[in-house]
Formats: sequence, C-alpha cells, structure tokens
Amino acid sequence: MEGRLGPGDRLPSERDLSADLGVGRSSVREALRVLEVMGLIRTATGSGPQSGAIVIATPAGGMQQLLRLQVAAQGFPIADVVQTRLVLEGAVAASLAASESRDTAAAHALLDAMDDADLPAPEFLALDAQLHLALAEASGNSVIAAMMAGLRSAIESYVLEGSARIDDWRGMAERLRAEHRALVAAIESGDGDSARSLVHDHIIGYYTASGLVPDAAL
Amino acid sequence: MEGRLGPGDRLPSERDLSADLGVGRSSVREALRVLEVMGLIRTATGSGPQSGAIVIATPAGGMQQLLRLQVAAQGFPIADVVQTRLVLEGAVAASLAASESRDTAAAHALLDAMDDADLPAPEFLALDAQLHLALAEASGNSVIAAMMAGLRSAIESYVLEGSARIDDWRGMAERLRAEHRALVAAIESGDGDSARSLVHDHIIGYYTASGLVPDAAL
Repeated sequence: MEGRLGPGDRLPSERDLSADLGVGRSSVREALRVLEVMGLIRTATGSGPQSGAIVIATPAGGMQQLLRLQVAAQGFPIADVVQTRLVLEGAVAASLAASESRDTAAAHALLDAMDDADLPAPEFLALDAQLHLALAEASGNSVIAAMMAGLRSAIESYVLEGSARIDDWRGMAERLRAEHRALVAAIESGDGDSARSLVHDHIIGYYTASGLVPDAAL
Repeated sequence: MEGRLGPGDRLPSERDLSADLGVGRSSVREALRVLEVMGLIRTATGSGPQSGAIVIATPAGGMQQLLRLQVAAQGFPIADVVQTRLVLEGAVAASLAASESRDTAAAHALLDAMDDADLPAPEFLALDAQLHLALAEASGNSVIAAMMAGLRSAIESYVLEGSARIDDWRGMAERLRAEHRALVAAIESGDGDSARSLVHDHIIGYYTASGLVPDAAL
C-alpha cells in the first residue's frame, strides 16, 4: 500500500516475512494466498533465494473471481450486473468511435469466426464474449476492461442457460451477427451516438429474449 | 458457484470441510481467508457446532480491497481509474435524475455538513467521498455503488496528496460546495444531461487543479 512494490518485484520468502513481521508461517501463507487469488502475486514453489512470490498485478483475474463469487452468493443481483454492463459497454463504444487510433483487427477476426452457421450456442456465446472484451481492450482502459470481463464471466452460466430457452437459436445467432457488424461499423465511422445505442439495444435484446432479465428490470 | 448457498447460510466447520474434501486443515483455512477478504463470508471463532463461517455476501468491502491493492501495485493506472469514475458517476447522475423515487436526504445532510468553513482538507474530502457514494447508493445499483466506493478508496491517498498542492484550499472548498449543490439541484429537477455534465466537470476540475491527472490524460 506504500507503493514500494510493483510488477516484477519479489516479496521476501515466507520464512523471512514470518520472522520480520513476527507472525506465524501459516498466517503468512494465508495472506499470500489472498494476494494470489486477487491477481497481485504469483507464488513460486521451493525454498531457495528465488522462492519468494513475485508481484504480477494482473487485476482482471482477481476481478473475475470476486464478481463470479459475489453473484453466485447473491451479493449482486443479476439486474444490477446487466445494468452496469450497459453503462460500461456504452462508454466503450462511444470512446472507440471517438478515438483516432482504434485497432479493430481483433474484433474483425471474431466477427468472421462467428459467421460459421454450424456453431453450437456455447461456442458462439464464447466468441461473443470475446468480441465484447476485445472492444473494451481496444478502448485502452484497463479498469473498464477488467470490470467488463468480470461482469460477463459472473453471469456466464445464466447466459448459457438462457440460450437454451431460445427456440430458434439459428435465427437469434443471425440477428446477433448482424447487430455485431452494425456496432463495429458505427464505431469505425466515428458515430458514437449510434454505437452507444446499438450496443445498448443489442445487450437488452438478448437478455430479454432469453428471459435472463425481465424487460421492466432495465 | 452452484448457487446453493446465500446470505445467512453457514458453511460446514473447518474440520468437516477438511474431511469431506479430503484436503488438509491449512488448505481449508487458506480458502476461508480468501473468501473472507473478498467479503463473501464472516468467520466465527470457536469449534462448536456454531463455529462454521457464515455467508454474508457484502461485495463492497472485497471490491475496495482488490482495487486499492491493484492500484498500489500499479496493476491499474490512475488515469484509467479516474476515467472509469467519470463513466460510472455520469451514469449515476443521469439515472437519479430520471428516477421518480429518488431519495436525496443523505446527500443533503452531507452537503450541509460540508458547509462548515473551518473543515480541514482531509475531513472535507472524506465527506465529499461520502456524498458521491450516497448518490451511487440512492441510484439503487449495488454493483455500481461497490465499484465507485472501490475506485474512490483506491486513489484516496493520491487525492489527499493532491489537496496539499492546492494553494488556496478555502477557495477550492467553496468551488466544490457550489458544484455539489448545483449537481444535486440538477438531479432533483430531473435534468439528466446537466447532471451528467456537471459531475463530469466537477471531477475533472478537481483532479486537474490538484495535479492528480494531467488534463490531456482525460
């Protein structure tokens, strides 16, 4: 918390931390496990001088764990998660449309991969999630990208269950493909207002069609 | 993750978890500590039948820990944190303005408390943070409220340091008071566009005046 350690720096060994802080080895180990799950350190095995944990600071993984667990334990209602996605995705779309250096190559590769008409719903939805994340990453804000990845992963199982409630999956996939292409086109033409409203309608449309969230909750 | 446990439910004791899962007591204890820091459970001491951890699912605390540590370890750049605050606070202001059942009583109590002209900067800034959080909570989205609390707390020490770089603190406090009142008034008159742009300018104004983030980074 004092800002003295950053990515690549090594923590003292468990033994040294225990001696320096005057606490038992098991307390040190518990603290290291917490930091590991939060994506702050990678722990190494062994007991030599190279055995200390390394600061990695990869926040996306920690955010994902936290949001998945909190949604599962009913700490966050699904409707609030969906609403937050709408806010963040709208901001990403508008900011990409306004950017002069946006790189949509990853998005195009995913759009093409989703054109395969024989993709089963789970594979399609996995590519769909990757597309939304690729746009967030292209927007360059690491906090928003980590939050979006976490929120999407927190409701992943509900999204999959929802797809089973859609009678005409091929028709739905066709619609999602067209919506994705329209969104990326609006971003590339620099039309932020359209991009924002297209991504909004796209998300709401899927969630209501799959019965994930009642229309009234949004 | 299977959704079988919710707030108020009790986990089996450490001893039972260890026996049921076939892992050592220390592994169980590490996992419980992780869940505790993430705000998912409250652990009880003792070893009787009432000794198991209780599911609490209070995500705000876990989010705060995660974001504080990741910002401190340079996992998230400050400019990205500030930009995300702008997105979330703008959405909160617009959604409150559009709401017919908004409750701004807590916000008004904080506005009044901030009128004390003798408040030192740290006390003023603590009330300021509470005001922004009270608005997020009034908007009713628990995910956005937890994220905003976490983001604000992640940059708390930078905000405090920044206040020391402001020569005329009394003048700045006067300006912040006026901006807060104008924001709450715009929300109460149902003017979402004004509320959104007032909160945007308010945040940017303070961060650039205190040298926390260069204007160009936003």
